[in-house]
Amino acid sequence: MNYFSAFISGLVEGEGCFCVSFSQRKKMTLGIEVRPSFSISQNKRNLVLLQKINTFFGCGAIRLSKRDRTYKYEVRSVENLVKIIIPHFESNPLCGIKQNEFLRFKEIIKIIHRNHHLNPNGMKQIIHLAYQLNESGKRKFNQMELLRLLDKMKI
Amino acid sequence: MNYFSAFISGLVEGEGCFCVSFSQRKKMTLGIEVRPSFSISQNKRNLVLLQKINTFFGCGAIRLSKRDRTYKYEVRSVENLVKIIIPHFESNPLCGIKQNEFLRFKEIIKIIHRNHHLNPNGMKQIIHLAYQLNESGKRKFNQMELLRLLDKMKI
Repeated sequence: MNYFSAFISGLVEGEGCFCVSFSQRKKMTLGIEVRPSFSISQNKRNLVLLQKINTFFGCGAIRLSKRDRTYKYEVRSVENLVKIIIPHFESNPLCGIKQNEFLRFKEIIKIIHRNHHLNPNGMKQIIHLAYQLNESGKRKFNQMELLRLLDKMKI
Repeated sequence: MNYFSAFISGLVEGEGCFCVSFSQRKKMTLGIEVRPSFSISQNKRNLVLLQKINTFFGCGAIRLSKRDRTYKYEVRSVENLVKIIIPHFESNPLCGIKQNEFLRFKEIIKIIHRNHHLNPNGMKQIIHLAYQLNESGKRKFNQMELLRLLDKMKI
């Protein structure tokens, strides 16, 4: 067992986020784009730790979040989420309530990885799971609005 | 190595606090009481994790903090800080900026454990170190006010 692996999971229990956001994209088949991301937010003073984590995972990037003036280490690539991030949290489990968030996120990533987000039923499943994640977060659409958008598309 | 030990240190990097607060107590030799504490704050949803941590350390207690409506696992006993909490973070080091906070806290606990906080020079050293910890926290007195209080006592 690697000390830093377990340490990262502890940090993520408090400061990590498994997020799924949605945008309206008329050019896409279902009119909705789904964007999953894993991130860890820290104050600027702890930027070096985020850099260590970036090096450890060997993927993702660090950016300044204008919304809350914190730095975010973020992984958005579905490939890297499947190959690196999810296996990390399977081997180094979250010991608190964040584990539920991770399990729902993993379900969503599985659906996307199989390209099932390109059919209406897959997308509905994703929307349902995503709105159980991060209930406190700000969202552009509520769940009903999103499902209505989906129903409006004639497929 | 124990997985949960390393996980706790990761959680503390984000959500832990090594704090030292001061109160004016006319009955005490120097007129000032110094109270060190180690704590981890979590939302009510994660109370079970705090209970696991309480069991793991075998000391301290959990209380609801009225100030920010979170639950706090807290260790205040100097004996337990010396025998349990400090050795934990020596074996399971904080990998980010919180390590500086821990090292200052450890210095303060050493001074208190030798009873040097009962003489003015020891207390001055503690005040100096404590005001480098948690700079963002709310304090009843600023550093100068506290040193002035100390100087007013005729010892």
